[in-house]
Amino acid sequence: MKTDRVNKSKLGLWLIGAYGRISASVMAGLAGIRRGLYSKVGLVSELDDFRRLDLVPLEDIVVGGCDVRKSGTVEAAESLETGAHIIGEKNLDAIRDDLLRVQEDVEEGILLNAGEAVERFSSVKPGGNGMHIDAMIAQVQERIRRFQARNSLRDVIVVNLASAEAFGDAAAAPETLAELRRAIASNRKDVLSSGILYAYAAIDAGYPYVNFSPSVSSEIPAIMELAEERRVPHMGKDGKTGETLVKTVLAPMFAARNLKVLSWISHNILGNRDGAVLSDSRNARSKLENKAAALQNLLRDPGIDSQVRIDYVPSLDDWKTAWDFIHFTGFMDTRMIMQFTWQGCDSALAAPLVIDLARFIEQAHREGLYGVQRQLACFFKAPTGVHEQNFAKQYRMLKRHET
Amino acid sequence: MKTDRVNKSKLGLWLIGAYGRISASVMAGLAGIRRGLYSKVGLVSELDDFRRLDLVPLEDIVVGGCDVRKSGTVEAAESLETGAHIIGEKNLDAIRDDLLRVQEDVEEGILLNAGEAVERFSSVKPGGNGMHIDAMIAQVQERIRRFQARNSLRDVIVVNLASAEAFGDAAAAPETLAELRRAIASNRKDVLSSGILYAYAAIDAGYPYVNFSPSVSSEIPAIMELAEERRVPHMGKDGKTGETLVKTVLAPMFAARNLKVLSWISHNILGNRDGAVLSDSRNARSKLENKAAALQNLLRDPGIDSQVRIDYVPSLDDWKTAWDFIHFTGFMDTRMIMQFTWQGCDSALAAPLVIDLARFIEQAHREGLYGVQRQLACFFKAPTGVHEQNFAKQYRMLKRHET
Amino acid sequence: MKTDRVNKSKLGLWLIGAYGRISASVMAGLAGIRRGLYSKVGLVSELDDFRRLDLVPLEDIVVGGCDVRKSGTVEAAESLETGAHIIGEKNLDAIRDDLLRVQEDVEEGILLNAGEAVERFSSVKPGGNGMHIDAMIAQVQERIRRFQARNSLRDVIVVNLASAEAFGDAAAAPETLAELRRAIASNRKDVLSSGILYAYAAIDAGYPYVNFSPSVSSEIPAIMELAEERRVPHMGKDGKTGETLVKTVLAPMFAARNLKVLSWISHNILGNRDGAVLSDSRNARSKLENKAAALQNLLRDPGIDSQVRIDYVPSLDDWKTAWDFIHFTGFMDTRMIMQFTWQGCDSALAAPLVIDLARFIEQAHREGLYGVQRQLACFFKAPTGVHEQNFAKQYRMLKRHET
Amino acid sequence: MKTDRVNKSKLGLWLIGAYGRISASVMAGLAGIRRGLYSKVGLVSELDDFRRLDLVPLEDIVVGGCDVRKSGTVEAAESLETGAHIIGEKNLDAIRDDLLRVQEDVEEGILLNAGEAVERFSSVKPGGNGMHIDAMIAQVQERIRRFQARNSLRDVIVVNLASAEAFGDAAAAPETLAELRRAIASNRKDVLSSGILYAYAAIDAGYPYVNFSPSVSSEIPAIMELAEERRVPHMGKDGKTGETLVKTVLAPMFAARNLKVLSWISHNILGNRDGAVLSDSRNARSKLENKAAALQNLLRDPGIDSQVRIDYVPSLDDWKTAWDFIHFTGFMDTRMIMQFTWQGCDSALAAPLVIDLARFIEQAHREGLYGVQRQLACFFKAPTGVHEQNFAKQYRMLKRHET
Repeated sequence: MKTDRVNKSKLGLWLIGAYGRISASVMAGLAGIRRGLYSKVGLVSELDDFRRLDLVPLEDIVVGGCDVRKSGTVEAAESLETGAHIIGEKNLDAIRDDLLRVQEDVEEGILLNAGEAVERFSSVKPGGNGMHIDAMIAQVQERIRRFQARNSLRDVIVVNLASAEAFGDAAAAPETLAELRRAIASNRKDVLSSGILYAYAAIDAGYPYVNFSPSVSSEIPAIMELAEERRVPHMGKDGKTGETLVKTVLAPMFAARNLKVLSWISHNILGNRDGAVLSDSRNARSKLENKAAALQNLLRDPGIDSQVRIDYVPSLDDWKTAWDFIHFTGFMDTRMIMQFTWQGCDSALAAPLVIDLARFIEQAHREGLYGVQRQLACFFKAPTGVHEQNFAKQYRMLKRHET
Repeated sequence: MKTDRVNKSKLGLWLIGAYGRISASVMAGLAGIRRGLYSKVGLVSELDDFRRLDLVPLEDIVVGGCDVRKSGTVEAAESLETGAHIIGEKNLDAIRDDLLRVQEDVEEGILLNAGEAVERFSSVKPGGNGMHIDAMIAQVQERIRRFQARNSLRDVIVVNLASAEAFGDAAAAPETLAELRRAIASNRKDVLSSGILYAYAAIDAGYPYVNFSPSVSSEIPAIMELAEERRVPHMGKDGKTGETLVKTVLAPMFAARNLKVLSWISHNILGNRDGAVLSDSRNARSKLENKAAALQNLLRDPGIDSQVRIDYVPSLDDWKTAWDFIHFTGFMDTRMIMQFTWQGCDSALAAPLVIDLARFIEQAHREGLYGVQRQLACFFKAPTGVHEQNFAKQYRMLKRHET
Repeated sequence: MKTDRVNKSKLGLWLIGAYGRISASVMAGLAGIRRGLYSKVGLVSELDDFRRLDLVPLEDIVVGGCDVRKSGTVEAAESLETGAHIIGEKNLDAIRDDLLRVQEDVEEGILLNAGEAVERFSSVKPGGNGMHIDAMIAQVQERIRRFQARNSLRDVIVVNLASAEAFGDAAAAPETLAELRRAIASNRKDVLSSGILYAYAAIDAGYPYVNFSPSVSSEIPAIMELAEERRVPHMGKDGKTGETLVKTVLAPMFAARNLKVLSWISHNILGNRDGAVLSDSRNARSKLENKAAALQNLLRDPGIDSQVRIDYVPSLDDWKTAWDFIHFTGFMDTRMIMQFTWQGCDSALAAPLVIDLARFIEQAHREGLYGVQRQLACFFKAPTGVHEQNFAKQYRMLKRHET
Repeated sequence: MKTDRVNKSKLGLWLIGAYGRISASVMAGLAGIRRGLYSKVGLVSELDDFRRLDLVPLEDIVVGGCDVRKSGTVEAAESLETGAHIIGEKNLDAIRDDLLRVQEDVEEGILLNAGEAVERFSSVKPGGNGMHIDAMIAQVQERIRRFQARNSLRDVIVVNLASAEAFGDAAAAPETLAELRRAIASNRKDVLSSGILYAYAAIDAGYPYVNFSPSVSSEIPAIMELAEERRVPHMGKDGKTGETLVKTVLAPMFAARNLKVLSWISHNILGNRDGAVLSDSRNARSKLENKAAALQNLLRDPGIDSQVRIDYVPSLDDWKTAWDFIHFTGFMDTRMIMQFTWQGCDSALAAPLVIDLARFIEQAHREGLYGVQRQLACFFKAPTGVHEQNFAKQYRMLKRHET
């Protein structure tokens, strides 16, 4: 797999948070599909709508990445199987070697202002253990380049799958690229975060960047300027995987029928690390804001009572369960109710979208597109540079753009 | 209201099934809105998207119609209030005179092959009590014309709100207009039904026709030919009010995420006359088919296990409750579940759509459009001449057409 | 109603929080039942199981009470009807005079350490506006006695229906009756609360006392001592009306089948004043503790993950809705799920229990019983002096005691 | 395991329907518990309440049985794992040898008037392929005795786990033991069924019998007479595993609060063989009756609208899902709603009860008890000879009897 030096047809997928649940699903899923253990269900990029696109084949994707924890790709997959039972015990045996090969391409990550909830389980010292920010960025770039060289990759897509960071206030970050560069040069660790550094490192080095996490990252103006300057495509943020996806198809229905939503109450319970980190309100803030904003936007009603709860329920592990209660009025101001429950495996919902995003953004890069990739809005809770939250319209943007 | 002879700005709404729950809601709703008792929530035609259209004002709509039962508009509204509590006791007092005025414009309907479940509560003799079909049609036309003249109406929209008929097999009806005319002339009561006769009568007399019921009616080729000949607009069938509406926004979401639906099980319970009639499997057939077909169409999967139950639960009266269980697989063939419950008042969901349809089709008529009005597909479970079931796309059809 | 001086057959019901939702339901319900507007459904004391008891007839109950707000019995009923639609507009007209008669027997209440969330809507000055505690107690007693005299009542039952108080820590209160009396004598407003003062006043004056609220009150040892001394029956606390009731029948089922509950997550949403007050975490604390304790007790499992959320959703008004998610394992450690939703009108669930409690405790008083009335445990979330939380067993205690 | 000839401490469990899902769970569960792969969760007989009883240890239970299909114990377990994932792939490998050992003790079953839905998958000829009924019974007895001898068992408990039979009308069966014996002697295959023959065979030969299926069997008077004559204990019928269990704890709650249930609608969906057989209305009849009867009994209300649906949804396999919608009124005739969904693995719920029943009835037999074992009512939907359906009371019967 690593010998194709001439053709360089392969695509690298560099995952930030490589020992997390989503990464484990990406690795296990890709390996299992190649070995014929799983179907391609769940991959948007495999739909007929995108068949005539020249997307990179699944078998040409090589995975690597970094993490702040001491763990391993096999350990991550085992933990996913034990907790959520989505790999299959025998499938796990069958792909163990594939996972070990990926392991060789996973290095240590960096940590800056991620918050205590994240630092608690990290083995990496926050703030680069005294290292200058300049050096932290250089280290990240060095690691991506090494991954590319070792595997003779045509391109590498960097995807941020790290836990939600406590540094949630984008306004605190430098505004312009010039300011950002000054902050880096003067080692201003107070106004930067891992999410910003990763985005800077990837884009500055010419690698397309996807922010699948809710953390502050490539969507700040300074990084957007950098992406224009470097002519690198990027998109974010906060993957739209389950309950919010459902919201963004249901809310337009209420709007199109002129049904007035009075209250939309959402209760999410989950038991993976994501759930544990989000139980710290500082880390949950941006996620909750993204979830609430979508509704207000879609229902064009500032008066709507939209409440979102995320609670940590260890027994559920990766099986995020959501209850949504929608109170609305119809004709003659009649009060009616719709409720739904969603029982989905978070990682199995997120992982294929990560692969889809890598394939779509790689093609964009190959075709010379750069800056914000608005056509990818349908994959995100808070799509950078896109106001439209209606999923049906977002999907049309994707379909039209690509054909 | 009936004195404006010069200007003739008023629009007539002639409801087949005028003593039913939906009609009661149409009448009470319109009267209440005029008196400032209710907001305009629930009316699609009041959305900003249609503001610049020259739709007939709500206060210019005059209601009349026919029914096969001996009852009254006030009795119907009282029964709706007692059973479903959506009018409000004091509101009902406030609009009682309005309802009595409508009462003067309600005449006896006709009945042909509607099935025992319907005949059981009818006071009209099935098959016109020996009358020739020709005369039955003439009688309907005579009644609509009288309604128009009495109220000096610019136009009259005929809307079929009658209970589902047992005559569910459109294939048994005459195929061409010529055949249909021969069947009428030779008084062939075995191959015709009330639904067909009403459509024939309205369109033949130049009145736009809307089939909101699931019964066989204007969508058969013979009537479509008639509408072309008479240059009259029409559309149907089977109003998309609640659970099926939700299905046609959720199913496209599963398709767009490449999530494979294994089973979609729907259980509807309701306690109004509609529920009682549908508990006769002969009358329920076409409704169940419409509900199932939408899913298969949207998920492009003939293998999907789609089951729909409708059960009669008197205590619910008009409050249709639906439970939908959706079993699907995602990435790595992981099995997941979404469930929803819908607690909606059937009449309050249907009534505004009836008013919307009347306003939209009146405008089409005024602008010289005729034949099937495909842009109205979003209002129906089985839109005549339209294959698209995706609600978001159907709504776009409506929005684009009208602006 | 107030002329029966000789026989004195009537029972007084003195409600603390007389302008609240529950009180409005008690008053409207009793008046409506007397006038034949409602059935007796919901009243436990009307079950066959208690037929041979000599309980006071419903028509012999006279209602009065106090409140810290400026409002009225008619206003309270109107607000209940507007918000929750449980009285019926015409029924409300029919009982308006009955409510006005009750109004004459409602006086001003007292307020001490109830917390800001309560003080915000009170017109009474906290802490008796400088009055000595002794005088506050005397004032309450004076008002109850006046109510009794004015209506020639054989007995008066005092029921605490006031909002949850922030003074949630019973440990802060005086421990013994002697200490309590010293605290009162020395005007120690820091260690007392309205809940304690009301209980003291009622019991000291010889009136049976029921604490239907979650506030600290008659269950503290000092008051229990007083009740023994004064030979007055009392019971509390925190009415078991809806979701907790369901929990205390379902949890024993899991236990009896040896099914291991891993997590039991409850989310309550409601929009009445109770919901508003409970959205202040200080006022919610004792309620949440009562809800969680029941489960741990019933499942005999300290490891169970029991989480309870109460959120304020104004559009729901009195219609408390709860979603419970129960994750459990069965044979072969198989993980299974039960979920339920409860859509109940809080006041309509609480009000009949208030009437039941008054009837049962009055009979106990008449028969010479005093102190904690353990047989009434089935009506409470945190039954004073009773460890048993299994509803089936609690109900048996009630049935056996009374026959 | 089969060498303990002297002590004869082992108990035989002879399962009718040994290749079905429940039997597979019994076998896999017992084997897995012995090997430390599973906890004892789900076994009622392991509760503290029964600790001082001298129940046979789990490791002393030896399983055998019969089936009308050609299959195997390993195949059954594999199918259970593939379809429902409750064994665990590696656990299945670990117990494969245990299952093969059981295989040696599984013989061919008999078939009489079970209905087409059952015959469709049977390899055994219905009606004993011309054999005399006498011989069919003798054959069954011979097989049980052989099982006992081969394994040196102290006693054998026969448990009917076969699919629901179409022979659902107990009234068609012979009434008295004398009549039954005449019917057998005269080979009257029209008035008998497999369920009756198995019960006759077991009890006549002195083996305790448990009818866990909904089929007509030991509960008919003729067999009850036989059990008295032979002094053999027996009990049935129709295991109370999931949704009905919940009903029998919730219904008493509504009754005890005097809440009037208007409608209780239940929709069960499942995809195992049980579901397939029950989709034939002839086989479903008795099951549906058992489910509805419990409610009417508990709510003492003949007017309650109780409807039960069972639909076959293959994708669910053994994961029975039920939605229950409960419409009720409370105080002031307020209409309220409770809904629940139950997502349980049918076999994992049934299997431990089979083991419990074997242990409890074996002890009863050992202590000289015979005839109907009413104390076991809590395990059944239609407990023989017991009118009480309240689960809490039934459980008390079990606890009191045994201590």
